[in-house]
Amino acid sequence: MQETVTAAVQRAIEALRRGEPILLYDADGREEETDMAIASEFVTPDAIRTLRKEAGGLICTTVPSEARDRMGLPFLSQLLGEAAALHPVLARPLATAAPYDPVASPFSITINHRDTRTGVTDRDRALTVSRFAQLVGEALRHENGWAIEALGREFRSPGHVPLLNAADGLVARRRGHTELTTALVTMAGLIPSATICEMMADDGRALSKEDAKEYAEAKNLVFLEGQDVIEAWRAWSG
Amino acid sequence: MQETVTAAVQRAIEALRRGEPILLYDADGREEETDMAIASEFVTPDAIRTLRKEAGGLICTTVPSEARDRMGLPFLSQLLGEAAALHPVLARPLATAAPYDPVASPFSITINHRDTRTGVTDRDRALTVSRFAQLVGEALRHENGWAIEALGREFRSPGHVPLLNAADGLVARRRGHTELTTALVTMAGLIPSATICEMMADDGRALSKEDAKEYAEAKNLVFLEGQDVIEAWRAWSG
Repeated sequence: MQETVTAAVQRAIEALRRGEPILLYDADGREEETDMAIASEFVTPDAIRTLRKEAGGLICTTVPSEARDRMGLPFLSQLLGEAAALHPVLARPLATAAPYDPVASPFSITINHRDTRTGVTDRDRALTVSRFAQLVGEALRHENGWAIEALGREFRSPGHVPLLNAADGLVARRRGHTELTTALVTMAGLIPSATICEMMADDGRALSKEDAKEYAEAKNLVFLEGQDVIEAWRAWSG
Repeated sequence: MQETVTAAVQRAIEALRRGEPILLYDADGREEETDMAIASEFVTPDAIRTLRKEAGGLICTTVPSEARDRMGLPFLSQLLGEAAALHPVLARPLATAAPYDPVASPFSITINHRDTRTGVTDRDRALTVSRFAQLVGEALRHENGWAIEALGREFRSPGHVPLLNAADGLVARRRGHTELTTALVTMAGLIPSATICEMMADDGRALSKEDAKEYAEAKNLVFLEGQDVIEAWRAWSG
């Protein structure tokens, strides 16, 4: 069993290194959603089109906590909380927790690369994501202060790509798609950012785990569950 | 010519009243994008699926300025600007203008209805949008203060439906899809909120005006240009 998990995670890591999408179901009793995930550094306009047509949810890009700290990127829920004194409407609807998770939503700000036009086309979102991935990679190699300046030089906000701040310690702290996919690209030795999108069904609900597995088989994609990643991460980081 | 414009706008108004999508191209030299638009009060899970599959951009819901004022809903760019003192990263990337428009981005906060689960499924987004539309309708019939309380009672933020704040005076002030579609549902006598999504092509770009027209003919949908709405609005509001 342990070997099977290792083999599945290894296949996912190899697919991510080739720039291919993988499918990741979080867990029964949690969101119970399957996200399609691609390493952000390899995101192309074709990849964005695949995510929006084959998955259908929101296309978001994850930020590992080390890069988040270098960039000083706040959580959106934190910004809304701080803004409540000036904007009373923000006091009450502030989300501190989703129904399935005691930890706050990973949403951070939304961005567009400054060389985009409207920001929403496949070309524009691919440029935003791939250049942001480069910045994540570089942020970790520079002094503090550099990443804050670089983000502002290259990107605008608000934009059309929501950033997702991964929890400190990744899956040790939170087991959402944000942390699970960021752990996978980290173990793959890639720039530690994934671009992810929830898979929808035609009946108004999320694609079921069984249908996601079938889709993965039909398309020859790797399908994983959160627990597989958590076990691999424990072995890798321990 | 004037009659043709009036007839096209009239057909769009009738389609919106039936809960059907219409297609709206803004203008040459502006975004040059066609949005699919539906009156928010009629948004169903099927409508969300149509928007994500047939259009492919971001699915957003517009807020007329009267309701925005009642709810005290800030522009996201304003929130980011105010937060820059606490979060230096927000000082530089703050977007005050897009390349095609001197007026700030209409993005406001993102919301989920409190009865949603993950917030992103077609059912969840349809619940969020249709209940938000009801709130817009009711906000205009209540005293100040009611709408701020009602928004917090019914919705969480951050969520999966971005709100778009329409400019004061609608198309007299800004001629984006936000204002154009809100003007259309207003002229239709519906709750003045539209749910809109940019139409994408398979080549990485936005769907061209010509291809959007062809799509509209094939699907028997109304296609309009921004100028048609601006002229109709002038006659209607003058």
